[in-house]
Amino acid sequence: MYGIFSYDTSTPRMGLKHKDHVLDLEVVGLLGYFDNLAIDPAVFTKPFLNDFIALGKPIHRAIHQRINALLEHDATAFAEVHDQVFIHESRVQMHLPVHIGDYTDFYAGIHHAENVGRMFRPQGDPLLPNYKHLPVAYHGRASSIVVSGTPIRRPKGQFMNDGQLMFGPSTALDFELELGLIIGKASTLGEPISVNEAEDYIFGIALFNDWSARDIQRWEYQPLGPFLGKNFGSSISAWVLPFDELEPFRVSGAEQEPAPLPYLQNSGDANFDLELDVWLTPADGEEVFICRTNARYLYWTFAQMIAHHTVNGCNLNIGDVLATGTISGPEPGTYGSLLEISWNGERPLHISHTLSRTFLADGDTVTFRGRGFLNGIRVDLGEVTGTIHS
Amino acid sequence: MYGIFSYDTSTPRMGLKHKDHVLDLEVVGLLGYFDNLAIDPAVFTKPFLNDFIALGKPIHRAIHQRINALLEHDATAFAEVHDQVFIHESRVQMHLPVHIGDYTDFYAGIHHAENVGRMFRPQGDPLLPNYKHLPVAYHGRASSIVVSGTPIRRPKGQFMNDGQLMFGPSTALDFELELGLIIGKASTLGEPISVNEAEDYIFGIALFNDWSARDIQRWEYQPLGPFLGKNFGSSISAWVLPFDELEPFRVSGAEQEPAPLPYLQNSGDANFDLELDVWLTPADGEEVFICRTNARYLYWTFAQMIAHHTVNGCNLNIGDVLATGTISGPEPGTYGSLLEISWNGERPLHISHTLSRTFLADGDTVTFRGRGFLNGIRVDLGEVTGTIHS
Repeated sequence: MYGIFSYDTSTPRMGLKHKDHVLDLEVVGLLGYFDNLAIDPAVFTKPFLNDFIALGKPIHRAIHQRINALLEHDATAFAEVHDQVFIHESRVQMHLPVHIGDYTDFYAGIHHAENVGRMFRPQGDPLLPNYKHLPVAYHGRASSIVVSGTPIRRPKGQFMNDGQLMFGPSTALDFELELGLIIGKASTLGEPISVNEAEDYIFGIALFNDWSARDIQRWEYQPLGPFLGKNFGSSISAWVLPFDELEPFRVSGAEQEPAPLPYLQNSGDANFDLELDVWLTPADGEEVFICRTNARYLYWTFAQMIAHHTVNGCNLNIGDVLATGTISGPEPGTYGSLLEISWNGERPLHISHTLSRTFLADGDTVTFRGRGFLNGIRVDLGEVTGTIHS
Repeated sequence: MYGIFSYDTSTPRMGLKHKDHVLDLEVVGLLGYFDNLAIDPAVFTKPFLNDFIALGKPIHRAIHQRINALLEHDATAFAEVHDQVFIHESRVQMHLPVHIGDYTDFYAGIHHAENVGRMFRPQGDPLLPNYKHLPVAYHGRASSIVVSGTPIRRPKGQFMNDGQLMFGPSTALDFELELGLIIGKASTLGEPISVNEAEDYIFGIALFNDWSARDIQRWEYQPLGPFLGKNFGSSISAWVLPFDELEPFRVSGAEQEPAPLPYLQNSGDANFDLELDVWLTPADGEEVFICRTNARYLYWTFAQMIAHHTVNGCNLNIGDVLATGTISGPEPGTYGSLLEISWNGERPLHISHTLSRTFLADGDTVTFRGRGFLNGIRVDLGEVTGTIHS
């Protein structure tokens, strides 16, 4: 996994996570380990991954192979320069990994969409008529995406309470368990990306928490969608996993019935088996396991999201984030938001003998962790965490 | 008005529009005309206005005063260096004026919102319950905002036609007559901007056409708002008018009843009397006047938009665009979109003896022009134009 870190008095720079250390890639390059790969080590000293991403997948793969070879056998290749190239993670500060031009949030988790429909439109079909025809999405706020560990301030805003207009701190602050795709290649305005080329445009994936103020959102969102209920902050993991590393976890998705239009038809397995957990640490309390879900529950694939996003000619840029929307599984225990877990506050979640939650309290820390684990192969997605303050 | 231009073999650079010429500000600076203003002329050679904007209003005002003094008396101060500092507009190419981090589109035109409500919810109140309590807004796409003159490709997408799912080029392509505020100062994540300080965060205004595919939007927008119906392209004028120059056109707005919450209460006149026109040129035809409206019809003020946008702690950055949403007046002839002018296609607009429009045809060029003209004072807002192609 790649990220942007600093330590001691260094400027932010690019690193690779290796167990509990960070590999300083500029130093690795200056020591000559990337010789004959035609890479200027200066690319590793930039404050965002974007310039590295722009090198393209063939270069990424060459670097990856070289590093893997060096790290084999417990990194003995680095034995003599260990302290120059490896920084212990306790010494580093992590930074936002990419400069994000645009951020799009999808709604590709069908069980989440059905749960929301059941709660708020109990009389009708839980899914709206368009749901199985297109991956519903909206544009989110890029400026307020922060790196894992950044505190999240409880937003103030307008909301309705028993028919009364209120103003104050949100009383329905929630997390949303999502994955974020980091776009790896720019497309041209006016030119769609075909569904079968779409994965070439993904640099990697991150864990993503799209914090949501349900009360603010509910009052504001008609007719143009969520705004202040979402844009006060989203958290992204510090480490980005290159998309190639998801290959071993490829699985088939849900059957799509009705069949989507041709521009949305994937060939092959385009879902991924990635286990995703939520943990909650109350102020002055122990970390508690909340739920576990899986990215394979997404109805729409990453490739379909990209094909749909660009079918009208909308262009993507390196560093754009496409988030999946909340990922929930089919039954309780696999829901990816407190809105669903507490069924809009009706069923408090008991997190200890004395504590329960419908929505988040000040001082709560929410941590998502993820991993692929299939056929004996394992990959770590790291974590994204944030603490609520008033 | 300031913009980014290039000519002959020059790189893009910052210019000031003066009648039918562009003043090359780097050259003016290198010739010493900005001496003792403590400005590095290199700021005028950047490909976007952002670094200039970051200098702040006191510096902007000092430059403005100096330039105004130099331009008095028909620019005789520049007589000896005329050909060095002035480039005729026929020789210049204009570029996107600002690097746009985030783009937000409001819905502040109350007559537009009422017209849309009357068309699509004929049985109910034309305004939704939240409309007079908060300035409704959503996030738009920054990557596809293009400078005036850039061709606009008709988007393809999904839409419903007589209950049948269709895919193809939009058959309901429209313009939306808007103003775009260019943010001039960054705010801090977590810190709201008060309504009475909000105008300090505006660098200037531009004309803005938020092209819309009504058929695509109608099918996709539930429950999370517009996406592909909007993000295929928006056009912004090449020239940005500094906000100070709007002072002579300040007027009181509509009475806001019910009174908004305290965080949205403006003091003083916070609307602006700015006349805005739409012109349409069919392929191989003459330019035809379509409608005229006025920015004073906006229900929510610029200051209220900024206060609302940040009340939850969402941060703004230099170069962000906040667009007003479609500006329509109270009666036909003052509507700012074809959706309203043709009443969703029911009343074709006759643009010549032989031509009519419900929505835009390929080859149509749409041009907005704007100006302030009040108490004998006049300011030109320039124009934004774009031609539709297939």
